Amino acid sequence: MKDLTKAEALAFLMSKPRTGKLASVRPDGRPHIAPIWFIVDGDDLIFTTWYTTVKAANLKADPRVSLCVDDDTPPYAFVIIEGVAQVQETPDPTEMLRWTTALARRYMGDEVAEAYGKRNAVAGEWLIRLTPTKIVAKSGISD
Amino acid sequence: MKDLTKAEALAFLMSKPRTGKLASVRPDGRPHIAPIWFIVDGDDLIFTTWYTTVKAANLKADPRVSLCVDDDTPPYAFVIIEGVAQVQETPDPTEMLRWTTALARRYMGDEVAEAYGKRNAVAGEWLIRLTPTKIVAKSGISD
Repeated sequence: MKDLTKAEALAFLMSKPRTGKLASVRPDGRPHIAPIWFIVDGDDLIFTTWYTTVKAANLKADPRVSLCVDDDTPPYAFVIIEGVAQVQETPDPTEMLRWTTALARRYMGDEVAEAYGKRNAVAGEWLIRLTPTKIVAKSGISD
Repeated sequence: MKDLTKAEALAFLMSKPRTGKLASVRPDGRPHIAPIWFIVDGDDLIFTTWYTTVKAANLKADPRVSLCVDDDTPPYAFVIIEGVAQVQETPDPTEMLRWTTALARRYMGDEVAEAYGKRNAVAGEWLIRLTPTKIVAKSGISD
């Protein structure tokens, strides 16, 4: 088992279009988890969410989150981000379209990126910037 | 996008040795997430954890958890389990060895299953039974 540096961890996050699993906390104290599409932007992670989702409500009430991306084949590797989510409920439309298109390109491919990007850059879709406070990243878990 | 039945969701969980991402809550209210190996046992999920881990402390303080397993390739699919974790700090050694060996077989293969099983069936490794209270499962997310 080997610890990854911050640079290696960020590179792992962007190496393949793996989904992130985002953990947040419900107002009643129960944990919630949901898979998300994300993009690394500098040291931050960017994702979007529809305003009626459980995670939207959770992030608005308590912005503390944890996110996991892993390689679930031997010898296994994972990156866990702990941090704070900054929620933009009415993002700038041009900026939003840029992110939704980039997210669609990463997870769905060039051919459908523009169509998906437009579909998701609509009122009601929130833009989230996750700023890490801690990164735990390991590779070669089962070695 | 299609909702999976409970039977389809459990079949998805066992179809490939994907890791589960387990969300729990720290005593200070922050969410925590970690990848785990698990096995479906009837309607429950079985996994183990070392007693000094963050998730061990969290589960002992608050057994409410959420777990996500997803297929992160188009058209994407996921199963999210919400439930309660029953912690056995000193499990029966024979039962523990059976589970750790089965977990190693599923995630590492037949050749090393017995060696890994023995390595993990030691004092300090806790046996956890997660009983679902709710299952949300969808396939064809991006269709």
